[in-house]
Amino acid sequence: MKFDGARESFGSRDRIETANAAMALPILSGLESPKDLKSMSSDELTRLAEEIRVALRNLSEKKSVHFASNMGVVELAIALHAVFDFSKDRLVWDVGHQCYPHKLLTGRFSQFETIRERGGLSGFPNPAESEYDLFKTGHAGCSVGSALGLARGDALMSDFEREEGTEPEERYSVAVVGDGSFSSGPIFEALNHAGGLQQKTLVVLNDNKMSICKRVGGFGRYLDHMRMAPGYLGAKVRVRRALEKLPLAYAFLSRFKDALKAGLVGGALFEDFGFQYVGPIDGHNLPNLIKYLEAFKSASRPVLLHVLTEKGRGYPPAEHDPSKFHSTTPAKILDAQRVEKAREAKKARDRGFRRRLSSVVGIGRPESDDDSTRIEVVSRSIESASFTYWAQKAIYKAMQSDRRVCAIVAAMTQGNMLEKVRSDFPDRFFDVGICEAHAVNFAAGLAKAGMRPIVDIYSGFLQRSYDHLFQEISLQNLPVVFALDRAGFVGSDGPTHHGVFDLSYLRPFPNFSVVAPGDARDMSDAFEFALSRSGPTAIRYPKVETGVISRPFVPFESGKSETIRSGKDGYFAVCGGGILKTALDLAEEIRAGTAEGIEQLDVGVINARFVKPLDADAILQPLRESKPLVVVEENMLAGGFGSAVLEAANDAGLDARPLVRLGIPDRYVEHGTRNEELRDVGLDRAGMISALAEALRRSRLVFDN
Amino acid sequence: MKFDGARESFGSRDRIETANAAMALPILSGLESPKDLKSMSSDELTRLAEEIRVALRNLSEKKSVHFASNMGVVELAIALHAVFDFSKDRLVWDVGHQCYPHKLLTGRFSQFETIRERGGLSGFPNPAESEYDLFKTGHAGCSVGSALGLARGDALMSDFEREEGTEPEERYSVAVVGDGSFSSGPIFEALNHAGGLQQKTLVVLNDNKMSICKRVGGFGRYLDHMRMAPGYLGAKVRVRRALEKLPLAYAFLSRFKDALKAGLVGGALFEDFGFQYVGPIDGHNLPNLIKYLEAFKSASRPVLLHVLTEKGRGYPPAEHDPSKFHSTTPAKILDAQRVEKAREAKKARDRGFRRRLSSVVGIGRPESDDDSTRIEVVSRSIESASFTYWAQKAIYKAMQSDRRVCAIVAAMTQGNMLEKVRSDFPDRFFDVGICEAHAVNFAAGLAKAGMRPIVDIYSGFLQRSYDHLFQEISLQNLPVVFALDRAGFVGSDGPTHHGVFDLSYLRPFPNFSVVAPGDARDMSDAFEFALSRSGPTAIRYPKVETGVISRPFVPFESGKSETIRSGKDGYFAVCGGGILKTALDLAEEIRAGTAEGIEQLDVGVINARFVKPLDADAILQPLRESKPLVVVEENMLAGGFGSAVLEAANDAGLDARPLVRLGIPDRYVEHGTRNEELRDVGLDRAGMISALAEALRRSRLVFDN
Repeated sequence: MKFDGARESFGSRDRIETANAAMALPILSGLESPKDLKSMSSDELTRLAEEIRVALRNLSEKKSVHFASNMGVVELAIALHAVFDFSKDRLVWDVGHQCYPHKLLTGRFSQFETIRERGGLSGFPNPAESEYDLFKTGHAGCSVGSALGLARGDALMSDFEREEGTEPEERYSVAVVGDGSFSSGPIFEALNHAGGLQQKTLVVLNDNKMSICKRVGGFGRYLDHMRMAPGYLGAKVRVRRALEKLPLAYAFLSRFKDALKAGLVGGALFEDFGFQYVGPIDGHNLPNLIKYLEAFKSASRPVLLHVLTEKGRGYPPAEHDPSKFHSTTPAKILDAQRVEKAREAKKARDRGFRRRLSSVVGIGRPESDDDSTRIEVVSRSIESASFTYWAQKAIYKAMQSDRRVCAIVAAMTQGNMLEKVRSDFPDRFFDVGICEAHAVNFAAGLAKAGMRPIVDIYSGFLQRSYDHLFQEISLQNLPVVFALDRAGFVGSDGPTHHGVFDLSYLRPFPNFSVVAPGDARDMSDAFEFALSRSGPTAIRYPKVETGVISRPFVPFESGKSETIRSGKDGYFAVCGGGILKTALDLAEEIRAGTAEGIEQLDVGVINARFVKPLDADAILQPLRESKPLVVVEENMLAGGFGSAVLEAANDAGLDARPLVRLGIPDRYVEHGTRNEELRDVGLDRAGMISALAEALRRSRLVFDN
Repeated sequence: MKFDGARESFGSRDRIETANAAMALPILSGLESPKDLKSMSSDELTRLAEEIRVALRNLSEKKSVHFASNMGVVELAIALHAVFDFSKDRLVWDVGHQCYPHKLLTGRFSQFETIRERGGLSGFPNPAESEYDLFKTGHAGCSVGSALGLARGDALMSDFEREEGTEPEERYSVAVVGDGSFSSGPIFEALNHAGGLQQKTLVVLNDNKMSICKRVGGFGRYLDHMRMAPGYLGAKVRVRRALEKLPLAYAFLSRFKDALKAGLVGGALFEDFGFQYVGPIDGHNLPNLIKYLEAFKSASRPVLLHVLTEKGRGYPPAEHDPSKFHSTTPAKILDAQRVEKAREAKKARDRGFRRRLSSVVGIGRPESDDDSTRIEVVSRSIESASFTYWAQKAIYKAMQSDRRVCAIVAAMTQGNMLEKVRSDFPDRFFDVGICEAHAVNFAAGLAKAGMRPIVDIYSGFLQRSYDHLFQEISLQNLPVVFALDRAGFVGSDGPTHHGVFDLSYLRPFPNFSVVAPGDARDMSDAFEFALSRSGPTAIRYPKVETGVISRPFVPFESGKSETIRSGKDGYFAVCGGGILKTALDLAEEIRAGTAEGIEQLDVGVINARFVKPLDADAILQPLRESKPLVVVEENMLAGGFGSAVLEAANDAGLDARPLVRLGIPDRYVEHGTRNEELRDVGLDRAGMISALAEALRRSRLVFDN
């Protein structure tokens, strides 16, 4: 894992901007280390908070970033660094995208505007960037467990030091958990363990009343309940005092004090797990935050500090509509007015679309936060839209025509563009929060009851449900459809968010059918196919735009690929959209003899459509004729589509030497644009040319034998 | 999924035994359907409970079964079937191994003694056996989610019926969850969702104070706390009445009633999630159980019924030591005395071993519950012990020599034979409960703090941690060792417990090293190797005995296989123990020309040792010479060891036709003995012969070309 060093790559422009920033943001730009905070006055810290908000706004005017959550944790980040020394203490952000103020405070101000660019800062904590970042955290819910491990590990290591005669400094371990992450199962598993161990650990519950979307479930209501407690902490004292005047009641109820502490004002749930509950406290009151964080140092057991923050704090439009500003694009920030105008214009055009295409439904607002694949509402035409768009269209249509169909999301209603599904089918739409394991269990129950659930989820997040895919779905052979969005590279979110394992993890599950649609029409057919099956089906598609590839109609059938162009001299067999288009265009060039690095060849293109069952008949045909075959996939090479083709070739007793696999090698690909990421691993035009050249060389070798 | 029909396969012996049983167990044997319970008197139901306990004891005298938990839920199962009609209502058992009384009550008495045998009843619920079994549930924590899905799905389907003019009967949905399962993350995710939806669902918390081992964590303490509430439910009323006499206090505390209901007596945690909490109630008081279950029918929202049961109830030795009788062998049950004697004798022999082998440590009691692999304490010699035994030996040794090493288990201390590790290294031994996701997050934290954690876990249960293996371990490249026990077929527990996916799911993770030791010496070397790495390592081994294979010493090196016997005419390349021994013996026979179905050949055997990095140099050598190569693994064929070899052959541009892969095909293998399961998929002597014959045929084809 190597950090390319943003400082170098941004050179002189960076230096000038830094100089400008120094004038505007004197404290922030002068900060050498978070240790400087310890000598600052309360006023200076407050001004620093202001400057951080300016830096965040400046950034958001320039690029797509996570915005509202970072505006909400400015004081919290300052207070944490003012109280602790995270060069030795431990800090884990959950989810990691709220780490921007932390990055600004830990020596990364001058690189700040490189965030989410290739070679620049990551949008998540990254140990390769800074000693202050411990874990790359993009998936929710792991923080309490790892903070607990850190606390216990540090305690054990300290014991060893003591045995060796040196008295180590106490190390504090802190997890900052958003309330959206908090409903995640692993959090409760860790609370249970921490409570049992009574290992001193601080869990800061950053309660902003929002997950990425509006939060869901009983736990959210529980937090709201606590918010309503008058005067927060004060009430506890007042109530206790009043009750202490009632000796009869007090004596009668031996457990009264406990009940007061835990049950009356709030926090019983956490106390029940063995935590000391403190809060809720105002997360924007710096001196107060510092006071409570300091108090933790003298605690002797795990503490849950409940902090109330406002998402988007300091930026009125985001305070008003934090979901919208969860991640922002410069357009959102710079010109709310222009966006409004564009929306009006879009409405007019949508009316036009509806006339032209009777089945157009739910033109939601795409929530992509990656420039490389951003779908501008203003400029998008129906001929090219994101796979996400086509998925929601198919889901909407299915729910309209079959009332057994229901949709389940895990806090990604906007990312999945399902707002219209949510509003039009409220009874059959379920947002379970960031609870992917539960999403799958719940779907299994629905399916068993006779419904036809579609779990619409990002490929990377479905990883959280692996064992549930196995036991609740594959083993029971239940008809659940998995719409795997963001399969392949996701762009600037980077390796925590890439969806590059799904083909490898789904293929070994019996009963599963795994589909990778090649274009918009395949998407619609794939959902129809999946809903007609009596077993489980996964449909995986990347974060990119597609239209309908114009070609003769080849019906969508189970286990059948589609030969879009036939070729006398060899084939590309391509799994999934985005890269299919690249291969088609390249094949055209190669046939015309205009592609450099490769001779003129009559090369065909197969749209695999199915990874399981695989269309061995068609895809292996080139090998039967010792012709070059390049198999292309946006998945790890280990165990993916290419392996499926190799396995089939071996089963068929074929010589697979003229086959060359193109996919993701055995390493993580750092953040950049999708195209940069594809290029990095050779999943681009140049990579396909080299692969074909190699396949050709090998096929000739075989032929000459 | 086909149920082979135990009735047939047990023929006349079965009929005679049934006739005998009918005399001894008149009610149980006369039961035609659980609907019969509805017309039984309270006395008859109590006698039925007695008979079920007799049937369970009879069974336990004949075979290895889950025992103590089933003895504990007899009344609960009767009450559930007396109150509900699970031919339409919904019942999910979590974990499924407590379903024996349920099986007896749902028409499976005559097949009962076929349980856990090939073709007989499964030891878990199985929809192929009975309409009363909804899900195969072997992994904990999914029940509340699927029961909730069932409840919501049934409600939706009822709406449709209503729209069509028929008034459907109300269907009730019930999850019975052991308290061990209850700390599982997905349970909390589901509680959160159920509380949010306010969908009527009954969660029965079967609280027997035990997970499989003694339960751990804050939640367990919480339950104990509630148990201490005087008079259980009665107290709630008494306390409220007393407080209602205090108008001042009552008026002052507007939330007092809530606090009383929730905080004082117990259940706040569940109420906080939006559940109505009822309990704790005595789980062996049938009339009371029935009353509370009936009461649920008129509830309008999710209810948590807290039921106290005693594991092993009705069998004094098991009541006294339920962990020991979690799963039993006939020996345990039949003759406690003989076991005692054997233990004494063993102790004496152990003292002998210690003299001979200075490094022998922790001769724990094996907890295998599968006859085919049972390690008799009495007969075991140090030359042959389970891989589990060698793992705990290596772990103990590592913890002895390096104090940074710690061990983490997920409620499987006994199954992993780590009792001695637990007692000798209490500070560095962590049982996190049935919380596999957390186990991995926690290990990540420990590793980051400088410790060297070993997560000792069953291969199938590590599936629960897939996303954590990705984000917390592989992506961070942390030095955590995963000891994957029960990799491959597990015998009579069947498909929920087979560990047949790990090679496919681990291979695609960058930074991981994946090791499959071939024998006892490899085990020790593998742990040493793993602990010396700076990244993560998985060591996978099957549920079978092994000794040290006698052969010349070949050092254990990263990415290096070991050619145990070289062969001029071809090779078996074998991944992992158990099957390695089969291949070695077979190779001997083939060399001697005494194996039927295959000509005399000089065939060699490679002990792969590493799946990742793969020893392509050695393993591919036969292909370079167009010699037959049979690759053998106890893992799914999709994406496993064979695929790794195919990928490497393709990368090397080799003709892989003479390679034949032997592994688990794309289907689930039902329960039986390990050997039956291996035979089922051709992972036995006969299968290896056919594979070699095919590889030979192909290599000649290639050679003739």
